[in-house]
Amino acid sequence: MKNRVITISREFGSGGRTIGRMVAEKLGIPCYDAEIIEKIAKESGYSDEYIRTEGEGAQDRWLSNIFSNRAMGPTNQDTIWVIQSRIITELSEKGSCVIVGRCADYVLKGKADLLNVFIHATPEKRAERIVREYGERDTSPLERIREKDRRRAAYHRFYTDLKWGHAQNYHICLDSGELGLEKCSSIIASLF
Amino acid sequence: MKNRVITISREFGSGGRTIGRMVAEKLGIPCYDAEIIEKIAKESGYSDEYIRTEGEGAQDRWLSNIFSNRAMGPTNQDTIWVIQSRIITELSEKGSCVIVGRCADYVLKGKADLLNVFIHATPEKRAERIVREYGERDTSPLERIREKDRRRAAYHRFYTDLKWGHAQNYHICLDSGELGLEKCSSIIASLF
Repeated sequence: MKNRVITISREFGSGGRTIGRMVAEKLGIPCYDAEIIEKIAKESGYSDEYIRTEGEGAQDRWLSNIFSNRAMGPTNQDTIWVIQSRIITELSEKGSCVIVGRCADYVLKGKADLLNVFIHATPEKRAERIVREYGERDTSPLERIREKDRRRAAYHRFYTDLKWGHAQNYHICLDSGELGLEKCSSIIASLF
Repeated sequence: MKNRVITISREFGSGGRTIGRMVAEKLGIPCYDAEIIEKIAKESGYSDEYIRTEGEGAQDRWLSNIFSNRAMGPTNQDTIWVIQSRIITELSEKGSCVIVGRCADYVLKGKADLLNVFIHATPEKRAERIVREYGERDTSPLERIREKDRRRAAYHRFYTDLKWGHAQNYHICLDSGELGLEKCSSIIASLF
C-alpha cells in the first residue's frame, strides 16, 4: 500500500512551511522542507554520485555554474532536480510524511497516496510576514515577493509543465492570510 | 456590521451547487443559486423596470438578441448582469447566506464579509457526475464540460476581469471529486 503523503506548495511569505510543520506535529509524522532535503542530499553523498553519473555538465562545478546551458547537457539545476526527486521518493517510501516545496506533488504522482495542498495569501499579508520572519532588506518586501514568486513559478513550470497556483492542480488551496495558520493546519490534518 | 456571505464558484459538474445547499443547511441560512436569482428577477418585476431604465439595447428583446452588439450599447447579457448584481447585493443585505455562481464574489466585494470558495474536480469525475445528475446527451459528457467551462470562464473574465480558477482569487479551493461533497461542506461550514 502506498504511504499517505501531504505535499505543500506555497507562495513566498504565506507561512506554508510553518503550516507543514504544524500539520506534521498534529499527525505525529515527519515534515521535510527544502532545507532538510538539501541537507540530506549533501550528507548522503548522493549528490556526488549523481553528479558523476547523471550530471555531465556538472563535473567542474565552478565552470558549469558559469556556462550553465542546456544545449550543452543538463545544468546544475537539472542535476539537483534529479537528486532531490530521488530523495523525495525515498522519503515517501519510508512512511507517511509532509513535504513542503520542491514540486513534491509532481515528483510523487502515482508513487504515493497524495494530498496536494497550495497555500497562498495576498501580497500585503505576505509582505508583513516576511518582514516579521526574515527582517528588512534593501529591496522592499513587495519586490522580494514578486521576485521569489516569479522564480518559483518558472521553476515549477519548467520541471512539471503545470501552472503554478492553478486551483485544479491541488486537492485544497487555502488563503493563510484570511484563515490563519492554525485553522489551515487543522483543516489539512483533518483530511489526512 | 456586514453580513457573512459564502460565495461558491464552481466548475460544471463539480457538485458546487449541492455543496452550497449542504453548507446552508448545516448553518441554518438560505442558499441562493443561479436559478433562484433568475426566478427572483422575473417575479420581482425588477427585470422589466431595469430593462426600461438601464437596458437601452433590450427594449425589443427579440431584435436585441439577434443584434446583440456592445458597440450599440449594453447587450441583454449586460442588462441581466446589472439586475442580478442588484439582487445579489439585496440578498446579502438581508442576512447571512450562501450564494452559488453569478460572480457573487466580485459583486459583493467590500459589501459583505465574504468567504469565497471555488469547487473543482477532474474532468473524469465531473463527467461521471453530470451523466448521473442530468442524464446522457448527444454530445459526450467531456465535451459538455469543456463547453460549459469555457462559457463560465469567459463570462467571469468579461465581467470581473479576474482569472477563473486561480487559487489566489478565493479563500479556499476544494477538489470535490477527491474530498467528497460531505467533507467539502463541513470544511466550508467550519470557516463561517
